[in-house]
Amino acid sequence: MAEENLSVVLHAQGDLRLEKRPVPEPGPNEVLLQMHSVGICGSDVHYWQHGRIGDFVVTKPMVLGHEASGRVVKVGSAVRHLKVGDRVAIEPGAPREMDEFLKNGRYNLSPTIFFCATPPDDGNLCRYYKHSANFCYKLPDNVTFEEGALIEPLSVGIHACRRAGVTLGSTVLICGAGPIGLVCLLVAKAMGASQVVITDLFPERLTIAKELGADFQLTVKRGDGPQQLAKSVEDKLGAQPHVTIECSGVESSIQTAIYATRSGGVVALVGLGPDMVTIPLINAAIREVDIRGIFRYCNTWPMAIAMLAAGKVNVKPLVTHRFPLEQAVQAFETTRQGLGIKVMLKCDQNDQNP
Amino acid sequence: MAEENLSVVLHAQGDLRLEKRPVPEPGPNEVLLQMHSVGICGSDVHYWQHGRIGDFVVTKPMVLGHEASGRVVKVGSAVRHLKVGDRVAIEPGAPREMDEFLKNGRYNLSPTIFFCATPPDDGNLCRYYKHSANFCYKLPDNVTFEEGALIEPLSVGIHACRRAGVTLGSTVLICGAGPIGLVCLLVAKAMGASQVVITDLFPERLTIAKELGADFQLTVKRGDGPQQLAKSVEDKLGAQPHVTIECSGVESSIQTAIYATRSGGVVALVGLGPDMVTIPLINAAIREVDIRGIFRYCNTWPMAIAMLAAGKVNVKPLVTHRFPLEQAVQAFETTRQGLGIKVMLKCDQNDQNP
Amino acid sequence: MAEENLSVVLHAQGDLRLEKRPVPEPGPNEVLLQMHSVGICGSDVHYWQHGRIGDFVVTKPMVLGHEASGRVVKVGSAVRHLKVGDRVAIEPGAPREMDEFLKNGRYNLSPTIFFCATPPDDGNLCRYYKHSANFCYKLPDNVTFEEGALIEPLSVGIHACRRAGVTLGSTVLICGAGPIGLVCLLVAKAMGASQVVITDLFPERLTIAKELGADFQLTVKRGDGPQQLAKSVEDKLGAQPHVTIECSGVESSIQTAIYATRSGGVVALVGLGPDMVTIPLINAAIREVDIRGIFRYCNTWPMAIAMLAAGKVNVKPLVTHRFPLEQAVQAFETTRQGLGIKVMLKCDQNDQNP
Amino acid sequence: MAEENLSVVLHAQGDLRLEKRPVPEPGPNEVLLQMHSVGICGSDVHYWQHGRIGDFVVTKPMVLGHEASGRVVKVGSAVRHLKVGDRVAIEPGAPREMDEFLKNGRYNLSPTIFFCATPPDDGNLCRYYKHSANFCYKLPDNVTFEEGALIEPLSVGIHACRRAGVTLGSTVLICGAGPIGLVCLLVAKAMGASQVVITDLFPERLTIAKELGADFQLTVKRGDGPQQLAKSVEDKLGAQPHVTIECSGVESSIQTAIYATRSGGVVALVGLGPDMVTIPLINAAIREVDIRGIFRYCNTWPMAIAMLAAGKVNVKPLVTHRFPLEQAVQAFETTRQGLGIKVMLKCDQNDQNP
Repeated sequence: MAEENLSVVLHAQGDLRLEKRPVPEPGPNEVLLQMHSVGICGSDVHYWQHGRIGDFVVTKPMVLGHEASGRVVKVGSAVRHLKVGDRVAIEPGAPREMDEFLKNGRYNLSPTIFFCATPPDDGNLCRYYKHSANFCYKLPDNVTFEEGALIEPLSVGIHACRRAGVTLGSTVLICGAGPIGLVCLLVAKAMGASQVVITDLFPERLTIAKELGADFQLTVKRGDGPQQLAKSVEDKLGAQPHVTIECSGVESSIQTAIYATRSGGVVALVGLGPDMVTIPLINAAIREVDIRGIFRYCNTWPMAIAMLAAGKVNVKPLVTHRFPLEQAVQAFETTRQGLGIKVMLKCDQNDQNP
Repeated sequence: MAEENLSVVLHAQGDLRLEKRPVPEPGPNEVLLQMHSVGICGSDVHYWQHGRIGDFVVTKPMVLGHEASGRVVKVGSAVRHLKVGDRVAIEPGAPREMDEFLKNGRYNLSPTIFFCATPPDDGNLCRYYKHSANFCYKLPDNVTFEEGALIEPLSVGIHACRRAGVTLGSTVLICGAGPIGLVCLLVAKAMGASQVVITDLFPERLTIAKELGADFQLTVKRGDGPQQLAKSVEDKLGAQPHVTIECSGVESSIQTAIYATRSGGVVALVGLGPDMVTIPLINAAIREVDIRGIFRYCNTWPMAIAMLAAGKVNVKPLVTHRFPLEQAVQAFETTRQGLGIKVMLKCDQNDQNP
Repeated sequence: MAEENLSVVLHAQGDLRLEKRPVPEPGPNEVLLQMHSVGICGSDVHYWQHGRIGDFVVTKPMVLGHEASGRVVKVGSAVRHLKVGDRVAIEPGAPREMDEFLKNGRYNLSPTIFFCATPPDDGNLCRYYKHSANFCYKLPDNVTFEEGALIEPLSVGIHACRRAGVTLGSTVLICGAGPIGLVCLLVAKAMGASQVVITDLFPERLTIAKELGADFQLTVKRGDGPQQLAKSVEDKLGAQPHVTIECSGVESSIQTAIYATRSGGVVALVGLGPDMVTIPLINAAIREVDIRGIFRYCNTWPMAIAMLAAGKVNVKPLVTHRFPLEQAVQAFETTRQGLGIKVMLKCDQNDQNP
Repeated sequence: MAEENLSVVLHAQGDLRLEKRPVPEPGPNEVLLQMHSVGICGSDVHYWQHGRIGDFVVTKPMVLGHEASGRVVKVGSAVRHLKVGDRVAIEPGAPREMDEFLKNGRYNLSPTIFFCATPPDDGNLCRYYKHSANFCYKLPDNVTFEEGALIEPLSVGIHACRRAGVTLGSTVLICGAGPIGLVCLLVAKAMGASQVVITDLFPERLTIAKELGADFQLTVKRGDGPQQLAKSVEDKLGAQPHVTIECSGVESSIQTAIYATRSGGVVALVGLGPDMVTIPLINAAIREVDIRGIFRYCNTWPMAIAMLAAGKVNVKPLVTHRFPLEQAVQAFETTRQGLGIKVMLKCDQNDQNP
């Protein structure tokens, strides 16, 4: 472990650097990981471009990256369930305190949670990274490192579909066909949704959605009326969808989500938009359409691994670009330009396989 | 039954008349009721003053009234569970069709439901009224007619608290101390809430709330900042409330409701305001504060009767004014002026007792 | 409609007759159906062989059959959602009363429900049959009559998996690979189960289960110890299953179900056995393994049709034998001998297609 | 802290000793408590009399006691939410591992949980005891130490009523009027149950239950038929109870619980009986009466404290006997003889108040 630890560090808005950091030493309940595959998330790019997301502000250098997998190279003294050589996927959020949220099984809401690449916590876009062993999950042999890294975005889809109540025979509207919309599509189908309509501004994204299993696509144009779009969704399905998963965060799209959803259904909010939005709340209220936000996820890694190992969901087509860690800046630029779906950084110099 | 059937009929906006109508004949699954006590609801007054509520427009004369109880005087041929002389409370919404909502136990959402005093369906502010026998519930001897009539507003509180997830030890914020806010208070306490904070613009309403069991009162002034109010609520309770029940429909109050509620909690929307509202939706979403509307109620009469019979909730103090049916216009005027809490009309000339 | 109405009538234990009955006249809320495909259920055979199931005793001649589909040939005066020519699947249980169970969305528990081929209610193994229109569901063009008939057993699987809480990534043990075990398998997979272990006494049944998607098969021998079997299940899966669906009704199998299920999980009881059974209830209790029975189903037809139309579940391989209605006795004999999986009777002389 | 630490130690079956042990030193996440009040539980007596409960066997000396409260006298270095002098109630189960059960909010099911006075873990019937600070809850000034100690049995009632789904207007049968039956009664009432029937062999226990709020009492005689008893319960309530909470563990009582419960309801199993029991499982299954066990509790202390502080539940009458710690053997003998309801040991020589 006397090696270099090349890391992707955001120093301030617009100031992304590749630099060498010390290899960390795992504590008793931690493992040290040699990182293998780390996906770039829109939030990584957002920190780079804006230096902040909402109240989270980058005030000191921070390693980016939180969609990750790697190999155990050192094991803390108290760790029992992992050993050197194990291939693991990393759940980036690890609660620091045994508070009411953790005790109740909703640890994602814990205000003091550690979370990779959310200021001030460092992420794992580097060669060597230590993490709470309890939030590292061993990968079966038939699940690749990249699938392991993709469990993070997949978890957003799982948490969203679960909170939205997707079940057998559900009809689902997904607003937005970016990476998160696509994982919601995959998960909704795996949970038994009978029909999924997906919308986006860009037809090429809808083409990908169709390939991944969307039953209907709807190209949205800026300025389309939310009620008219809701009507188009109903026309496609023959009835209003039971569930809408809003992945864009755009005000008009949230309006569409409310108008479109069947009475007694659910709108799940995954996309994040402006602080204040103007919406037809009464329309939702008097039809008992519940509005439920999604904050990251909890308790998703085991079921995601089970799905991947069983071949129930295929995330491999999501990876459209790969770069070695040394080319991280190009990789970030690729994501910034919205090229492809998911850009993967390969952190292990000796193994750049998926 | 060759009697007159004096009825309170709204002919058009502002045109409220007392007139005689024929005594109806119950169908096979109906009962004819001699009405006893009927409370005036804000919605009755709203129809009178505005001729409409949202998309529901009074286009032909309509009998008002839907908070009601009476005595069975005639029984349809297929009715088994009621007999002449039974004292009953009336659930004003009776589904007309065996649709998906009824089959799933959420018949309040059925788009074709009959509902008293919602255009075009007549209400029961009259001497004789027929209703679906399945939605008439026999009152035990120790439950008065007025308590029976008050089951309707109480049901709003039950449905709201149930959908909001109030349970043992819940802390609850109730926005608005009008009749609905007060029934939510009574129900929240009966369901085990440990502490309830209630807010209103008018200190005299808060005084009543205190008498009915509110633990904390907070007088709101127009222009108070929602985040500041949310902070005041937290200060009162020592922590953010698990649940907020918004009974005002006012935009700033909905904002307060969101800011005030604990992460992972619920905001239940009972008050109805403007079609479009501007709210801090992201604040709710990233803290997984669910927003759930309430449309009337379903499956509440049996539990309300059980509560009243067991003395678990005391609604009697809610009745502050009583008028004989003949003085309906004065009664409506009293409600319009916001005097007291609940105005009760006494429809039985021979029994004007509670 | 001046046609004959050939019907399969059980007169008493062992006395099954084909006889002509009048074509019924639908009431205002009913439709008359020309029957197309009717599957034979184990319960039909049980009534034939024993004249009773539990407290339900055949005391007068009863038409058998309740897994059925047909075509609308006459429409009651109040029916709006169906028209002559519509192809429909029949939900055999239609509640007669608007009781607490129906109002709460659990109408299968209504004690006065009409149910095809449960004494004294006639079933639909005949040429012409009338049924509550609200419990006839229009089939899309791409769903066959036989798939429509198979919605009935499929509904048992849906209700079982739903009550058992099967969800994304669940591991499931199914005890018994008869027709009901197999539909539970299909549904569990469609709801996102990652791995299913299925058990049976007969290896040939397990072979079919494997073809239908079971991940692991376990041949049980009479006398196998429940705890040993539970251990074998855990060995197959690498961990105890989250959910067990018991389809045999055999005492030792219920014991196995309890021992096998993971703490905090669910045992769903689908198979019906003797009145009294001896089980390790404490073992379930102290591990909070919930035990939930299944009585028929409710609210399953729409989601089953959605699944079939979307190609999410393939029930076609379940039909292994077909007989024209005239050969009903041979068909019953085939089922009695346990040959194949599902025997289908073809009731339409002019259309014996699937 | 150089004081003696008098402790109640069970050396082996029947061998209960008062002996001095070292005062423990709290770890970084622990607090040292000066014990104040500790209730004696039936399980403490059972270990004393039998040396084991099920698979838990006393193989080395173990301090008894787990219904406890005390005062913080030393605080671990990492503890933030408690300080010296705080009065706290102790949740005796503190999970040792961040396993799937803890992550999902059901940490009571964690197989490696630390639990006071369950072999091999020591309890807190002593002068000084250290415990995980995260499982010590600060008591408000208006909640006494004895109320704090009684949160433990109260938690069993909360967990039972919560898992049983007791809610507004529920009717409840409680089988057994011992300490646990009585706390279930108190909690059911606080959660909104409209009527509670309670049964016991001993009329004097039923008298106490009546004083604590039971609406109906039913004296059971050995040999009474379960179906007859179920009928008696129905007669008392006028309908079958929605929920039954079985606190005796006796086979015939579990049978009664099943027969008595309304279709669609729940039987919660709190009492622990023999490993194998013979029950009418089919009766429960075909009426969808769910059977749910209770293993200790989780997430109950905060709501219990909220209830006690708000005066929503009065547990004080449960304490019928008090002994100083030095008289622990007499106290145990009193409990063994079934005298009174709850025997409280007073561990603080300078403060023997409630």
